[in-house]
Amino acid sequence: MQTPRELHFGTEIVLRAEQLAGHSDDPDGLTVAYLTRAHQTAGAEIAGWMIGAGMQVRIDAVGNVIGRYAARKADAPVLLAGSHYDTVRHGGRFDGRLGILTPIVVAQHLHERGERLPFHFDVVAFAEEEGLRFRTSFLGASALIGQFDFEWLDEADADGVTMREAMCAAGLPGTEEAIAACAIDPRQLLGYLEVHIEQGPVLLQRGLPLGVVTSIAGGVRQRVVVTGIASHAGTTPMPMRRDALVAAANMVLAVQRRCADPRDAARALVGTVGTIGVPQGAANVVPGRCEFSLDVRAADDATRDAAVADLQAEFAAIAARCGVQVEVEQIMRVPCAACSPALMQRLAECIEAAGVPVFHLASGAGHDAMMMARITDAAMLFVRCGDGGISHNPREIMSAEDADLAARVLLDFLRRTGAQIGG
Amino acid sequence: MQTPRELHFGTEIVLRAEQLAGHSDDPDGLTVAYLTRAHQTAGAEIAGWMIGAGMQVRIDAVGNVIGRYAARKADAPVLLAGSHYDTVRHGGRFDGRLGILTPIVVAQHLHERGERLPFHFDVVAFAEEEGLRFRTSFLGASALIGQFDFEWLDEADADGVTMREAMCAAGLPGTEEAIAACAIDPRQLLGYLEVHIEQGPVLLQRGLPLGVVTSIAGGVRQRVVVTGIASHAGTTPMPMRRDALVAAANMVLAVQRRCADPRDAARALVGTVGTIGVPQGAANVVPGRCEFSLDVRAADDATRDAAVADLQAEFAAIAARCGVQVEVEQIMRVPCAACSPALMQRLAECIEAAGVPVFHLASGAGHDAMMMARITDAAMLFVRCGDGGISHNPREIMSAEDADLAARVLLDFLRRTGAQIGG
Repeated sequence: MQTPRELHFGTEIVLRAEQLAGHSDDPDGLTVAYLTRAHQTAGAEIAGWMIGAGMQVRIDAVGNVIGRYAARKADAPVLLAGSHYDTVRHGGRFDGRLGILTPIVVAQHLHERGERLPFHFDVVAFAEEEGLRFRTSFLGASALIGQFDFEWLDEADADGVTMREAMCAAGLPGTEEAIAACAIDPRQLLGYLEVHIEQGPVLLQRGLPLGVVTSIAGGVRQRVVVTGIASHAGTTPMPMRRDALVAAANMVLAVQRRCADPRDAARALVGTVGTIGVPQGAANVVPGRCEFSLDVRAADDATRDAAVADLQAEFAAIAARCGVQVEVEQIMRVPCAACSPALMQRLAECIEAAGVPVFHLASGAGHDAMMMARITDAAMLFVRCGDGGISHNPREIMSAEDADLAARVLLDFLRRTGAQIGG
Repeated sequence: MQTPRELHFGTEIVLRAEQLAGHSDDPDGLTVAYLTRAHQTAGAEIAGWMIGAGMQVRIDAVGNVIGRYAARKADAPVLLAGSHYDTVRHGGRFDGRLGILTPIVVAQHLHERGERLPFHFDVVAFAEEEGLRFRTSFLGASALIGQFDFEWLDEADADGVTMREAMCAAGLPGTEEAIAACAIDPRQLLGYLEVHIEQGPVLLQRGLPLGVVTSIAGGVRQRVVVTGIASHAGTTPMPMRRDALVAAANMVLAVQRRCADPRDAARALVGTVGTIGVPQGAANVVPGRCEFSLDVRAADDATRDAAVADLQAEFAAIAARCGVQVEVEQIMRVPCAACSPALMQRLAECIEAAGVPVFHLASGAGHDAMMMARITDAAMLFVRCGDGGISHNPREIMSAEDADLAARVLLDFLRRTGAQIGG
């Protein structure tokens, strides 16, 4: 095994992430939308690396690239590891890809040593998670768990190309039968492990390279519309106004106050107003209408739903105080996914064995693991994100040291899993 | 003279406002942009009414329609009354037009009685005040006071038509010489009086039909840009955020607080954030940038500038507290225009004589009187606005009773002015 100073795994992961970022829809920043030319060549590059790692490779009907580092026995159980290879617009090199490259370099290490595992180690490079091209996300994982909604095939991208047409253009069958056949049998699974860059500043600020994810936050997303009375900015005295934006500003601060309550920090409660606007507003008109988005997440549904309920009540009170109306429309509600205690425990043992303090944290972002948790035990290993924790941004960065640690923990995890099932 | 119950003036004004609203660029709402077909036919209708009132009419090089109810002596001084006949998009029937129709019906009354005044009574229907078509406003009054900026001739409308081209298409000369010749000689003027719908709720809420304007608020308009750090809404804990919108929401409330200070209410201080946005924002991204407009007005420059300075300091303090940057760009600064004490006093006497309580108020909106005050004594008579004080809206309304009162006050004002100069 490598010593930490050699960083064999880490440099290999960082170099391959760099090389994989050469495939982009856009010369100005890493953009890989589902089934574009760059998406297909990126998938092909990943397939090549899997083959080099001694894996059997197949590409399924939605474009997932699946490599198997096979056990000796064909009927051995399967441990899955993976993440996605599509990106957001002008995204980072590690988001998703780290969870593909790490298991590939570990499998290659096993292959070079001739070391077999008592289970099939399947690495899945999910074709789609970000929802950049079509209005749906988690396309790859949905197909793998047999929950692909066939109505998505008729969704059109910004150019009017449907998903079905995009699949056929990429050489995929584009049929419901072929997509249904992507589903794997949960009974053969030992679990799913996803290595992912944290995409936040928590590990960075604590000076820790790795974290064990406890749960993946489900989100509630709402559209809030405040209706006051538009009037002339010069001629309406302040006490006579029914200013929709003043009411909305009070609501934005209510979100900040409620979600920053230190008692909920341990449950990873976060609330965000990400967009706001005054439709048909003008500098010289008192806002008659203001619309904003609300996104609330937490490590568990109860914490999040309590915050949402409190905010609903507070919005109503603010509206009454300001003499305006407020309407709230729920856009999305995704339940939280708890990680498997057994897999979390095993991950923690591997981290401890690597001489690194064990730290648990909730994931505020959604990940493929959220979908996989619907059919099998799932776990996630977070790796420290540099540069303030920025992600979904070209500035996203991680160190080769941290990537190396993650790979060594994964290798240990595979061996301990093997020992446990008695390989 | 009419008794209040007969409402001769009032019904005439309301009917003519209705008829004038038949000229519109847009069938769905009253829209009369500078030099459109509807603008020209509206101007022609006004000219016809002036002729019917015994006036000599001319249309100047920018489209102002000017009717003279002439004194016997050709070298008599001139009293001006007027307002604009262009509108905002989907505007009201009385905004501007009331200040044209009221003096016309009063002149017609004098004409029918054969009653001459010892001064020329000139009614100016200004061609442009609202700035709807080109980026400049107050075009009509600017030409009349000799302050038309010839660079405006090259301004293009949304269709790429320049102002010069629009003038030529409307049969106007479109030359600098012709526009320069629109300027009137201030030495011959007794003053300028503008009757205008209040466009606000103050008279309505006080149960008063008329108000004497003390000054016309000049505005300061600013563009405020708050820069924080965009980050993932799911993965950035609340205490680690640098949310530009949360800082901006605090600033919006600071504007509300500072400008609603009761000590400044008598100085008609108002502050408005009319537009706000998070450029490239998304529901799941903590806002990295937020932009908003700020409009501050008051009855005098000192009150307004003190509020603007306080807000600047408070914005800086909020930015420091929230860990964001704030930049403020001044877009516009128009000085306040004080109304003539002598004309205000005379208006007040006429209102009192009509049996109506005298009430003074500042105008928060800009008016042609603001420009006219640069060359002569100016005064404004505000008339109560119905339906909550709404204006710049198809719902703008006033009663025939109030219009009638305004006309009778104007008639009295003309006679008192005549008596004073010894006619």
